[in-house]
Amino acid sequence: MPQTQLQNRRFLLARRPHGDPAPDDFSLVSEPVPTPAPGGLVVRNHFASLDPAQRGWMDDAPSYMPPIPLGEPVRATTVGVVHASANPDFAVGDWVLGLNGLEDYSLVAPGGFTQKIDTSIVTSPTQYLSAMGAVGLTAYFGLLDAGQPKAGETLLVSGAAGAVGSAVGQIGKIMGCRVIGIAGGPEKCRRLVEHFGFDVAIDYRGKDVDQLAAEIAAAAPGGADIVFENVGGTVLDAELMNLAMQARIVLCGLISEYNSPEKVGARNLWQVLVKRATVKGFLIADYVPRFGEGGAQMAAWMAEGKLMMDEDVQVGLENAYAAFMRLFSGANTGKLVLQIAE
Amino acid sequence: MPQTQLQNRRFLLARRPHGDPAPDDFSLVSEPVPTPAPGGLVVRNHFASLDPAQRGWMDDAPSYMPPIPLGEPVRATTVGVVHASANPDFAVGDWVLGLNGLEDYSLVAPGGFTQKIDTSIVTSPTQYLSAMGAVGLTAYFGLLDAGQPKAGETLLVSGAAGAVGSAVGQIGKIMGCRVIGIAGGPEKCRRLVEHFGFDVAIDYRGKDVDQLAAEIAAAAPGGADIVFENVGGTVLDAELMNLAMQARIVLCGLISEYNSPEKVGARNLWQVLVKRATVKGFLIADYVPRFGEGGAQMAAWMAEGKLMMDEDVQVGLENAYAAFMRLFSGANTGKLVLQIAE
Repeated sequence: MPQTQLQNRRFLLARRPHGDPAPDDFSLVSEPVPTPAPGGLVVRNHFASLDPAQRGWMDDAPSYMPPIPLGEPVRATTVGVVHASANPDFAVGDWVLGLNGLEDYSLVAPGGFTQKIDTSIVTSPTQYLSAMGAVGLTAYFGLLDAGQPKAGETLLVSGAAGAVGSAVGQIGKIMGCRVIGIAGGPEKCRRLVEHFGFDVAIDYRGKDVDQLAAEIAAAAPGGADIVFENVGGTVLDAELMNLAMQARIVLCGLISEYNSPEKVGARNLWQVLVKRATVKGFLIADYVPRFGEGGAQMAAWMAEGKLMMDEDVQVGLENAYAAFMRLFSGANTGKLVLQIAE
Repeated sequence: MPQTQLQNRRFLLARRPHGDPAPDDFSLVSEPVPTPAPGGLVVRNHFASLDPAQRGWMDDAPSYMPPIPLGEPVRATTVGVVHASANPDFAVGDWVLGLNGLEDYSLVAPGGFTQKIDTSIVTSPTQYLSAMGAVGLTAYFGLLDAGQPKAGETLLVSGAAGAVGSAVGQIGKIMGCRVIGIAGGPEKCRRLVEHFGFDVAIDYRGKDVDQLAAEIAAAAPGGADIVFENVGGTVLDAELMNLAMQARIVLCGLISEYNSPEKVGARNLWQVLVKRATVKGFLIADYVPRFGEGGAQMAAWMAEGKLMMDEDVQVGLENAYAAFMRLFSGANTGKLVLQIAE
């Protein structure tokens, strides 16, 4: 192999992890950059999204997507530039978004999900992976479609300091809602109010259901018209004690339950009956056909200075393992992105 | 007081019960039949509805209705005949339905909730307290409005042998659903299939969540499109493992939780997210303005032989205490009614 040939570093899944992924579950290899088949592309990846969902794809378990094959790069949504094109709809140099892998160059087969993106409407292409990606659009469609907010209503957001939660709160403010966030620790709570414009932030740490319910009641005497739920467990139980009549609960995540051996569930479910409330399960995968519409609105709000999303951009494909593990250590703040090229 | 004056026996709340009501919490007195004020009525009560809600009204606790005052008759929905009228809209002899009391004669103040009923469309006036009363209309509006059943869908009903549950299943069959009932004991299960026309009945007794979930899965391989929930706890957890995509869960009651010191709640709530399901809290009180519409349809279905509701008619105002206690001992089968007059 001549040294002059352009090399493609690839971060492969070498072994299926047991529990927490270990460094040896992956290998970084270097191969020649491939050539596109007729109708296909080769994309130079610039940024890749790192998400908890990727951990699920590493297991040999049925999911909404097939497992990542062993010896293949870790699947990731990326934004990048067309490096070689055998498709008349794409020109070399076009910025594109697609489901590719953690590698310098991805071979895109004809007919896959790859779309051109307009980098002129964003301050960084990474916004297509954060505010305009699945995370931001979870907030957008989850709140607007499932939550149906109206001006003057009270919106209660759990996991409010996370990328989804902070966007939900800001969109709630844009819609004219009074927004109360629940997060862990005084620093996160301060940031919700001062940085993201929440009306009230409540620290859940060290509080039982009754204490947390009392704090929510003090902040929302008329109850919550909308609950945007990312957490579950004790936090959800306290929220359920503070529903307004006909409240809508958007069930977006139950992160407190995922790694707990004993599921807590919702012990105050009877309040859903008493308040004639509605609990609606939400998955962003159902909204892929509407990503363009949602992304354009999110970009417009960011341009107007009404919406911010923190990004945690880690640099270098050679650091992919350490960057990915930030998802689980609690080290990352904001949407986690891996920069593969300048 | 001359012996010839018409007497009104009244079953009074003498003392607020602690826990299970005791005989001494009540007293049966006899007073002269009253005379209506202008615009009012006196109704001869023939049948009274006995319901768990009455136990709540005996407490001095805030509810959707004020507590029954001490020294007043136990509040009850009754059907009866106008005995004396000072209201031009009602004639002596008219059959009426109203919120009155456990007594021979009720004084109806002007402007209250009392309506004439058409006894020609029913086989017994008691049907205005059962299939066409709150119990039957809970099934009717709960399934049709909150559940939105479509022909060919699978309907899963818990507490299926109860008055509400058995009506839900029958209405589901009328709507063209495949109906699976969950009940306690082989006799109740046999009755669901043979008497009420359910497609499958599952006995929950002695089964944990996994076992019950497996039985539901065998009966509904594609999952339940609608769950009509009367029970909660373990039964709900097993049902949640068997949802079809976009399932609707009508939360009508959580009877297993009401007297348990530790709430179980819904530990498998994450399935609502995975299946993009909706949980909807339902209270029949919201549907009072539509009782006429629902009652007419229920009467029509009964006349066509498509719908049956068991009634447990206990006889005699002097037996009011024993009759009421049947609600809590599990002795009653079908809608419990007290017959006050022939």
